[in-house]
Amino acid sequence: MVMDLNTISSPSFLKNLTKKQLQDLAEDIRKFLIEKCSITGGHIGPNLGVVELTIALHRVFNSPEDKFLFDVGHQAYVHKILTGRADQFDTLRQYKGLCGFPKRNESEHDVWETGHSSTSLSGAMGMAAARDVKGEKNFVVPIIGDGALTGGMAFEALNHIGHEKTNMTVILNDNEMSIAPNVGAMHNMLTRMRSATPYNRAKDDLEGLLKRIPAFGNRLASTAERVKDGLKYLVVPGMFFEELGFTYLGPINGHDFEALEATLNSAKKIEGPVLVHVVTKKGKGYSPAENDTIGTWHGTGPYKMETGDFVKSKVTAPGWSKLIADSVSEIARQDPRVVTITPAMPVGSKLEGFAKEFPNRFFDVGIAEQHATTMAAGMAAEGTKPFLAIYSTFLQRAYDQMLHDICRQKLNVFVGIDRSGLVGADGETHQGVFDINFLRSMPNIVIMMPKDENEGQHMVKTALDYDDGPICLRYPRGNGLGVPMDEEMKAIPIGTWEVLQEGADATILTFGTTIPLAKEAAKALEEKGLKVEVVNARFIKPLDEEMLHSIYQSKKPVLTIEESMLQGGFGSAVLEFANDHGYDTSCTDRLGIPDEFIEHGSVDLLMRDIDLTAEEAEKRIEKLVQKKTEQEGLEA
Amino acid sequence: MVMDLNTISSPSFLKNLTKKQLQDLAEDIRKFLIEKCSITGGHIGPNLGVVELTIALHRVFNSPEDKFLFDVGHQAYVHKILTGRADQFDTLRQYKGLCGFPKRNESEHDVWETGHSSTSLSGAMGMAAARDVKGEKNFVVPIIGDGALTGGMAFEALNHIGHEKTNMTVILNDNEMSIAPNVGAMHNMLTRMRSATPYNRAKDDLEGLLKRIPAFGNRLASTAERVKDGLKYLVVPGMFFEELGFTYLGPINGHDFEALEATLNSAKKIEGPVLVHVVTKKGKGYSPAENDTIGTWHGTGPYKMETGDFVKSKVTAPGWSKLIADSVSEIARQDPRVVTITPAMPVGSKLEGFAKEFPNRFFDVGIAEQHATTMAAGMAAEGTKPFLAIYSTFLQRAYDQMLHDICRQKLNVFVGIDRSGLVGADGETHQGVFDINFLRSMPNIVIMMPKDENEGQHMVKTALDYDDGPICLRYPRGNGLGVPMDEEMKAIPIGTWEVLQEGADATILTFGTTIPLAKEAAKALEEKGLKVEVVNARFIKPLDEEMLHSIYQSKKPVLTIEESMLQGGFGSAVLEFANDHGYDTSCTDRLGIPDEFIEHGSVDLLMRDIDLTAEEAEKRIEKLVQKKTEQEGLEA
Repeated sequence: MVMDLNTISSPSFLKNLTKKQLQDLAEDIRKFLIEKCSITGGHIGPNLGVVELTIALHRVFNSPEDKFLFDVGHQAYVHKILTGRADQFDTLRQYKGLCGFPKRNESEHDVWETGHSSTSLSGAMGMAAARDVKGEKNFVVPIIGDGALTGGMAFEALNHIGHEKTNMTVILNDNEMSIAPNVGAMHNMLTRMRSATPYNRAKDDLEGLLKRIPAFGNRLASTAERVKDGLKYLVVPGMFFEELGFTYLGPINGHDFEALEATLNSAKKIEGPVLVHVVTKKGKGYSPAENDTIGTWHGTGPYKMETGDFVKSKVTAPGWSKLIADSVSEIARQDPRVVTITPAMPVGSKLEGFAKEFPNRFFDVGIAEQHATTMAAGMAAEGTKPFLAIYSTFLQRAYDQMLHDICRQKLNVFVGIDRSGLVGADGETHQGVFDINFLRSMPNIVIMMPKDENEGQHMVKTALDYDDGPICLRYPRGNGLGVPMDEEMKAIPIGTWEVLQEGADATILTFGTTIPLAKEAAKALEEKGLKVEVVNARFIKPLDEEMLHSIYQSKKPVLTIEESMLQGGFGSAVLEFANDHGYDTSCTDRLGIPDEFIEHGSVDLLMRDIDLTAEEAEKRIEKLVQKKTEQEGLEA
Repeated sequence: MVMDLNTISSPSFLKNLTKKQLQDLAEDIRKFLIEKCSITGGHIGPNLGVVELTIALHRVFNSPEDKFLFDVGHQAYVHKILTGRADQFDTLRQYKGLCGFPKRNESEHDVWETGHSSTSLSGAMGMAAARDVKGEKNFVVPIIGDGALTGGMAFEALNHIGHEKTNMTVILNDNEMSIAPNVGAMHNMLTRMRSATPYNRAKDDLEGLLKRIPAFGNRLASTAERVKDGLKYLVVPGMFFEELGFTYLGPINGHDFEALEATLNSAKKIEGPVLVHVVTKKGKGYSPAENDTIGTWHGTGPYKMETGDFVKSKVTAPGWSKLIADSVSEIARQDPRVVTITPAMPVGSKLEGFAKEFPNRFFDVGIAEQHATTMAAGMAAEGTKPFLAIYSTFLQRAYDQMLHDICRQKLNVFVGIDRSGLVGADGETHQGVFDINFLRSMPNIVIMMPKDENEGQHMVKTALDYDDGPICLRYPRGNGLGVPMDEEMKAIPIGTWEVLQEGADATILTFGTTIPLAKEAAKALEEKGLKVEVVNARFIKPLDEEMLHSIYQSKKPVLTIEESMLQGGFGSAVLEFANDHGYDTSCTDRLGIPDEFIEHGSVDLLMRDIDLTAEEAEKRIEKLVQKKTEQEGLEA
C-alpha cells in the first residue's frame, strides 16, 4: 500500500510518485472502491475503468486552476478520492453523505456539476470562453464517455468548439459501453478507430509510401487536392473529429500511465481544441464487473465482494419497470402495431424481454432523448403504436419534442414515465419531480399514475387503446405493492378517479406513491373521530371534474398530496379547477415538494425532510377541519 | 407561362412536362412567390432557393405515399403551390389563412408539421421504422438545411439512422446560410465539400492514379487497410456522412433539373440511408434576396417588388430586441464581464451592435439552443456575466439545460426571453406562451417582464446587477410603447410590483403586454363607477408577497391577466400564494390562454379569439364585484 487513502488532502502528492508507486496506488484505489461500493452500492464499473486516467489527469494538469468537467459525473469517485474525500465513502449516496456525482459544495476541485449526460463539452466551452475573455491561461478538460457523445448537445458543442478553435483538451473515455452496450453509427466509427494504428507510427509508415506515388498529371489537378485530404485520413484515424476542427490524438491505452502522460503532455502543447481518444475497460480489475457485457455492473446496489453476487433485498412484489414492460409485451402479442423505443435504457426500463420477443419492433436509439421522442412521433404519424419508455428526469431533455412534435400534432404516443417521483441515491439531478409541472400546460396530453401494479397493467391497456393523442403513464422507481393481479387487462375511462374510502369530514386527493401515506393519515384521523375520504386521483390531466364538482359542492376540506413540485403541480390544477368554477378554496391545502432541489438519500428520509408524511397530512387536515368549523361558526 | 398555378390540384401533372416546361414553371413559381410575398410578407429567400429542388422531388417521388418532411418548414411554399394551394397565398400567414409551415389539416401532402429546426430526421426515422414494421415500401424523404444540421437532435438522428441502415433519402439543402450566415465546424466542412468534384468524375480520375501506386510491402500491411479507407475519402467528399453510415451523393447543383433528377433516381436505388447534398442559392432569381449576405431576406414583411425596398410600418418606438440588446451593450461598456450568446439569432435578437463593438465577447453558436444555454452556465461558473438572448419558443429546446445546468447550479445567467407571448404570423410552433409555465417550477429562478421599454432598460440593469442565480427577462415581439427613457438605468428591487393606478373596488394583476388592456378595462369600469386598481406584476417569480398580502387582506376581487398558458401560469401562482396563506379566492379570476395551441394570425385577432381582451376583463371584474356583493349580503 502506497498510503492510507484517507489521509489524502490534495492531489499535489501525485506529482512526486514513481511509476511503481502509481501502479500500487491504482491497485489500492481499486481495492478501496470494490470494498466500499460492495457495502454502499454505486457506479463501480465506470470508476474502475478510469483509475489510471484520473491519476494521470491530476498529474499532468493542476486542479482546481485547470478545470475538470466529468460528463454524467458518476465516474468521479477516483477524483473524489484524490481530492481528499476518501474518508467519506462510507456515506456514499446516502442522506447527507457524499454525493455520487461532482458537487461544487463538496470541494473546490468539483467545478462543474453533472448527472445528466452530454453537458460537459458545452460547460467546458463556456469555461474556456470565459478564460479567454478574462485573458487567463488555464486548461479546460472535459472528460466524456463514448456513450455521452451520442447526445445531441455534445455534437452541438463539438461543432461550436471546432469552429471557434478554442483551446481545450477533450478526453474521450471510450469504454465501448454507455450504460447498456452502446449503439449508433458513432459507436461503430469508434470501434474502427480503436483498432487503428496510433498516429505516430502510421505517419512513419506512410512516408515511404508517399514517396512512391508518382506525380499527378494535369488532368488530376482537382483530384490532387483531395488526395492531400485523403492522406490525412490515412494517418489520422479520428478523421471525424478532425473534420470538426479538432486535433485527434490516439487511440491510447487508458491503463498505461506512460502512454497517458505522454499524450496528455503533447495535448497541452497543441493550439486549438484537442481530442484525446483513451480506450479504457469498464470494470477493470474486478472480474465480475470486467466480464459484464450488458451493463449490470454500471451502477449497483450492495454486493458480496468475493463473489460479485448481488445482495438481494427481500421483495416479492414485481419491479415497476418490468411490470409495465411486460404488460406492453402482452398487448404487443395481440397488436402488431405496438413498438417500443428507449434512449439507452433497455436494461433499466426492463425492455430486454420485449427486445428479444419482437426484435424488429424494438428501438434502442442510444443516449438521445430528443431523437427518441420525435422518432416516436414519426412512428405514431404512420399508424404504429409507440411505447416510449423514458425516465422522468430524462424526459426533461425532450421537453420541446413532447410539446412541438407530439402534443402539437396530437399523435398517439404512449409515454412511459419511469422513475417518477423521488429516486433516492442518485440525488438532485435524477429526481423525477418536474414532469407533471412541465407537461400539464401542454394541450392534448393525458397524464396518469396508478395506485398499484394491478392498476398499472390496466393503465397500459388504457394507453394502448387510447387514440386521441399522447398519453403518459408515470410509475415510480422500485417495486409494486404486491397486490393480486387481475387476469385480464381492462382500460380505465380517461379522466376518472376512484374513491378508495368514503369519509364525510374531509377529502384527500392523491395518486401513485403517496396513496399509502394518505391512507395512513386517514386511519390516524379516524381514531380521532374524523372520517376522511381518500381519492385515487389517478388522472392528473384531465382531472375528474364530475367528482371534483361533487367534492367542492359538499364543502368538505380538501388536501392534495403529490410527490412532485408544488408550483404548477397537481394541487395547483385542483386550485385552478375550483377557481374556474367559483368554489371557495380557503379550506383546501396542498402537500408536495417545496421550491428547492432535493438532494440524495433514501426516499423515506427525504420525504420526512420535506414534511411529505402521513403525520403532516394528518396535521394539515385537522387544521382545515378546524378552519371550516370556525367559518361555519361565523356564518351561523 | 406554362399554366395558371391556381389550377394545380395535384403534383402528378409534373411528370409529363418537358425540360423547357419545367424551366418555365420554375420561372412562373418564382414570379408568383415574389409577387405574393411582396404583399403578405413571408419566408421568401428560402423558398426561392428550392423551386427546382421541390419540383424535382415531386417528379421523382410520389407524394403522399412517399413522405416529404420539410425541416423547419418555412421552405414549403413551393410544395404548397404544387399540391394545390396556390389560390390561398393571398391569405399566407394570416388569421384563418394559409399557414407558413406544413400543416396536416391543409393537405394530405403535408405529412409532418414543423416550425422548429432539426426535427425532420427523427420524424423520418420514425416513419421509415413504422414502414418497415408494417412491411410497406414507400420512400421517406426529409429535406433539411445545412443550418438545421447543427441542431443536436439532427445528429442524434443521423447517428441512429446510420446505425440501423434504414432506407431513407435525406436531402441536404445546402444554401450556406441558416437564418443568419451559418457558423460551426459542420459549416466549414460543408464549404469544403461544396467545392469538391462530384463523386462520379473523381472516381474516373482516380482509377488511373490507383493503378500507378506500387504494391505495398509487408511492413505496410496495417497501413494498407487504412489506405483503402483513405481512398474512399479521396473519391467521396462527404466522408463525414459516410463515417456515420450514409451513402453520400453530391454535391449537385440544386438549380439543374437534370442533375437533380439523375441523382435522386440513383438515390432511390441505393439500399440503406442516402444523403443527397444539394447546393442551392437562397433568394435565387430575385436579386435583392440573392445578394443578401446577413439574412435580411430570410423572412420579411411586405416589400416593393420592383426595388426590394421594405414597406416600413409607421412606428416610432424602438423595437424590443434592439432596446434590450443596446441596454446590454451600454452596461458592457462599463463591465468587462458582460458577454452575450445567441443560438443563430444575431439579427433577430439585434446583437449585431454588440458583436461589432465587443467581437471577443460575443458568441453565435448556430442553431444549438442546448449548447448555448449550458455554455452560458459554464461562462457564469467562471465569473463572466452571460446574457443569453433566446426566443421564448426556442428556449423550449433547452428546458433541461435551464433546469439541470443553470438553475440547479444557481449560476448567474441573464436569460433574455425574446418574443414572449403571442408572435402572430409564425403561428402555433412559434408562440412564446409556455415559458412561464415551464420555468416557474424551477427553483432558484427569477422571472420578470417590463411594462414598457423604460422599465425594460432598468430590468437589464437589474439582471446584470443580480448575483444570486439565474434571472430571466421576458420581452415581446415588436416595438415598445414610445415612452420617454430615463437617462440612467436603475436596478429594480427583486420581487417588487408597482401600483399603476389605485382603486378600491377590485385589483387587476398583470404584466408586460397586457397592461394596456388592463388599463383600458379599468377606464371602462371607472365610467361605470367602479374604481379598479391596476398592478404592474413585473416579477412573475418571486411574487410581491407583501403587496399580495395587502390585496388579499383588503378582500378586493382580483383578476389576473397574462398572455401565457393558464395551467400553472402566473394566475395559478397567485392562487397558490392565496392558498398557502389561507386566503379566500372565490372572488379571484384568471384571464389567459386556454388549454389549446394557438394558430397563426395577427396578435390582435388571436387575442380576440381567445377572449384575452379589455372587454372580457371588464366583464370578469363586474362579475367578481357582483359576487363579492352577494357574499357580503349573505354575511350581513
